[in-house]
This record gives sequence, structure tokens and C-alpha cells, in this order.
Amino acid sequence: MTTPKRTIIYVSDGTGITAETLGHGLLAQFDGTEFRPMRFPFLDSEEKVRDCLARINELSRIEGVRPIVILTQTNQEFSAILHQADAFFIDLFEAFIAPLEQELGSQYNRAVGRSHGHANPEYNSRIAAMNFALAHDDGVSDTDLKSADIILVGVSRSGKTPTSLYLSLQFSLKAANYPLIPEDFERGDLPSRLHPYRSKLFGLTIAPEQLHRIRSDRRPNSKYASLENCRYEVAAAERMMRREGIKWFDTTSRSIEELSVQLMQELNLEN
Amino acid sequence: MTTPKRTIIYVSDGTGITAETLGHGLLAQFDGTEFRPMRFPFLDSEEKVRDCLARINELSRIEGVRPIVILTQTNQEFSAILHQADAFFIDLFEAFIAPLEQELGSQYNRAVGRSHGHANPEYNSRIAAMNFALAHDDGVSDTDLKSADIILVGVSRSGKTPTSLYLSLQFSLKAANYPLIPEDFERGDLPSRLHPYRSKLFGLTIAPEQLHRIRSDRRPNSKYASLENCRYEVAAAERMMRREGIKWFDTTSRSIEELSVQLMQELNLEN
Repeated sequence: MTTPKRTIIYVSDGTGITAETLGHGLLAQFDGTEFRPMRFPFLDSEEKVRDCLARINELSRIEGVRPIVILTQTNQEFSAILHQADAFFIDLFEAFIAPLEQELGSQYNRAVGRSHGHANPEYNSRIAAMNFALAHDDGVSDTDLKSADIILVGVSRSGKTPTSLYLSLQFSLKAANYPLIPEDFERGDLPSRLHPYRSKLFGLTIAPEQLHRIRSDRRPNSKYASLENCRYEVAAAERMMRREGIKWFDTTSRSIEELSVQLMQELNLEN
Repeated sequence: MTTPKRTIIYVSDGTGITAETLGHGLLAQFDGTEFRPMRFPFLDSEEKVRDCLARINELSRIEGVRPIVILTQTNQEFSAILHQADAFFIDLFEAFIAPLEQELGSQYNRAVGRSHGHANPEYNSRIAAMNFALAHDDGVSDTDLKSADIILVGVSRSGKTPTSLYLSLQFSLKAANYPLIPEDFERGDLPSRLHPYRSKLFGLTIAPEQLHRIRSDRRPNSKYASLENCRYEVAAAERMMRREGIKWFDTTSRSIEELSVQLMQELNLEN
């Protein structure tokens, strides 16, 4: 018996990213079914909404099983039209808004289309954080390190860059990163530029076997990528961090999201 | 009368990012109340869960009003403990799992702690996409442009870099970006390196006044940042894109998320 595929449709008057993120979290734990995702974002007019309704009904007919619709639609009228579809609905707003209105004693504002663009101060601090992360990637620049919220250290390819960028884009944090390299291990000391910022340092480490695989993709058969060298660098970096009292995380089996949130916790950073 | 602040607590056995994203979407539209966020991620043991319960109850007592808890907790036993707290609950899993189980005819797997780290192929394609975006930022490299999913073009500071990075980190897309500069406008032609990739090009534009403000932060009183020059560059870039048949979006009032999802739609990119 082949596993049936079930169509899952993310519908929103915004980007649909919230719906999709929740959908991933929920559906990942239903092992018996495979899901095929579709997206209908930015449904902000009756025409688009009716078009989407027709598409859902068509799918339902063709596939012989009703699709699952995960919905974030702030406009009640459009939401009601969509609910006419032959589908199973997970309606995030419907489920929570009425009880929230009662709890807060205030009315939900159903206007769509709040601006989140350049005019928004939050946008600007996010872009500033991202520019900071780019300017301070891989020890490129040490001007202005004092304004960093966090400085990640670790061997090359231990996960510093993606984590820095995610911290900046998701949480508007100024995240720098600085590599620990064989010269540092031979000298037996942190890069001197980092000394003034001891309290902002946080380490990343990684299993040597994993590092070897990652580095081999970049520079196959190099000394840099050899398992022996990876073992040496990781051990030397961990020894240095231990001696300097720098806390660290192992990135081997953590997602970028997990790492980022754990770093925020450790540093008591609040965005 | 001062606006009352209401504490909102994101509680999860994972990162809590899903809970927080939904919370932002919901609460942003309750105008009457200000919210103060707190986070309790990674509650994956009974000890942590009981500690969180105590903290919520303490907050409720101190503040004299029960906090709002937005919860994504896959473990039912832990969830039940948390629900003893004196709080208003928005429980994402509770609300949807039972109906989904019935709809799918299969059981939700309540095991926590699925790995999303380096061992995961999804993780690797995401990191590859991010490395691609970094290597192809601002026209730095044109090797391997043919493997790009999309190449963003536009004047300096029109939003190409954040959009490229977001597309890579969120959707694992290989997004390059290439600046359009005054030399291109004088020559009256796209940068020649881009000619082979016409079908992958997408433009970003921005209101000249906004561009003037952004550039002035970087290089105050420069010709580069002057309103006159910004007007010239934006008009010339739009003329060039129109002539070349390159579609474009205005980034002035769009968030990075909105832009990214709209680009995916335009290009029929599926992650």
C-alpha cells in the first residue's frame, strides 16, 4: 500500500509564513501521512479570495479527499467566503480572536495591510543588525565590536555565520563572529582584539567527523578538511574556551533556530 | 490614564518561534493594550515545566492580572501541568491536534526533540543557499550565477541584500544580487555578466526620498546620498528594467517577508 498524499494549503492575507510554520510543527508529527504543500498568500481582495475558493474546491474534487487548509485571514468577510470551501480548516485567527477579545476587553482591529516596510522603526533596526552581522562576519572588521550584542567564536565552519545572520534577521541582534584558527592555538591565546569584549563571547563547537564532512565539500583532500586536523582544531578550540571561561554550544545536532534561541537565553538578550 | 501593560509569555518545548510569530500577528491588532513579552523555550523536562508554572503564578500574583500564555508543547503530560497556571491560554497544539487526528485517521506522535541539525539534509541545503547568497552579494562573484534560483537587481541600498539572505535562510533558495550603478545607466545596458541569465532577473526599486534617508545614514552629505542623485538613479534603473522587460517590486513599504513570498510567487519558486 502506498502512503496517501494529502494536500495542505496555506492561505493568508499576509505572507502565510505564520500558517506555514505552525503547519510544519503540527504535521511533522503525523507519521502516517505525506503532505503536499500549496500556498495562497496575500489574499487581500474578494476576487483573489473567490479564486482561491474555486481552486480549493477543484482540488478536492480531483483528489477525492478534502484538502487541509491552514488559514490566517484577518478579514472576517473573506474568511467566511473561504470557509465555504470543501476543506478541513485550521483557522488560527478564528480559534483565538474571540476568546482574546473577551480576555483583553478590547476589540480586534480587522484592518489588513499594516505596513512593515522601510517606514517602520523595527525594520530599520533589523536591517542595521543585518548590516552589522555582514560587516563583522568571520573577523572581517573589528571596528565597532563594542556595540555588538554577542560575538560568536569557533573554528572555521562550526556554524558561526548562519547563526549570526539568523540572530540579526530574526531578532534584530548585532551579532559578530570571529574565527579561532591554528595560529591562535599555537600562541595559546585568544585573538588579542577580542580581549576587551570577553563578556560578549560565546563559543560554537562541532563534532570533528561532521566538520570533516563539511570542510571536505569545500576543499576535498586538503589538510584543512582532514579528519585529523578537524580533531586537532576542535580539541584545541574547546581547550581554549574552557581555559578562558567561555561557554559554548555544540552545533552538531541543533538547528539554527534552536541555537539562536538558546544563545538569547544564555546571554539574557531580549530583542 | 496610562495604557495597561499585559505580560505575554511564549512557552514551548521547542524554540517558541512559532508561538511568538503567531502572537505577534494576533496581538499587533489589539490596539488598546501594550504587551510585555517573556519567553520560556525548550521546556523538555518536568523540572523545567514545574519551574515555569511557578514563575507564571508568581507573575500573576505580582501583577494582579493573569498573563497570556501562548503555548506550543507537544508533550501532553507537560502541557497538562502548565495548564494549572493562573493564566489565559492560547494553546496551539491542543486546539488543533485532536481534530487533525480525526481528519487524518492517524495518531499524533508526541515524542519531542526531533533533530534539525547538521545531520539533516534540509539543514545542509539551507546552509548551501546561505553561503551562495553571501558569495553572490552585491555582484561580488559571477562564478556559478547559472545555478542561482533568482538574481535580484537594483540600485545600491534598495533592499537586495536582506531579501537575498532571507530567501536563503527561510526558503533555502539560491539568491544572488547585483547592483545597478551609474556606469550601467550611462552605458544604457545591463551589466554584461547578467545577459545570459535574463530569465532569473528580478528588480527591486524604492522611493527616492526613502533611499536618500537610508544613504544619508551611511554617507551624510555625499553626492551618492543626495536626493537629486537618488531620484536620478531610481528613475534610470526603472527605465532600464522597463526596457529590458524585467519585473520589479517597490520595497518602500514592504517587509522582507512580504517581498520574499511575493518573489517566490512571481518566479513560481517552490522551496
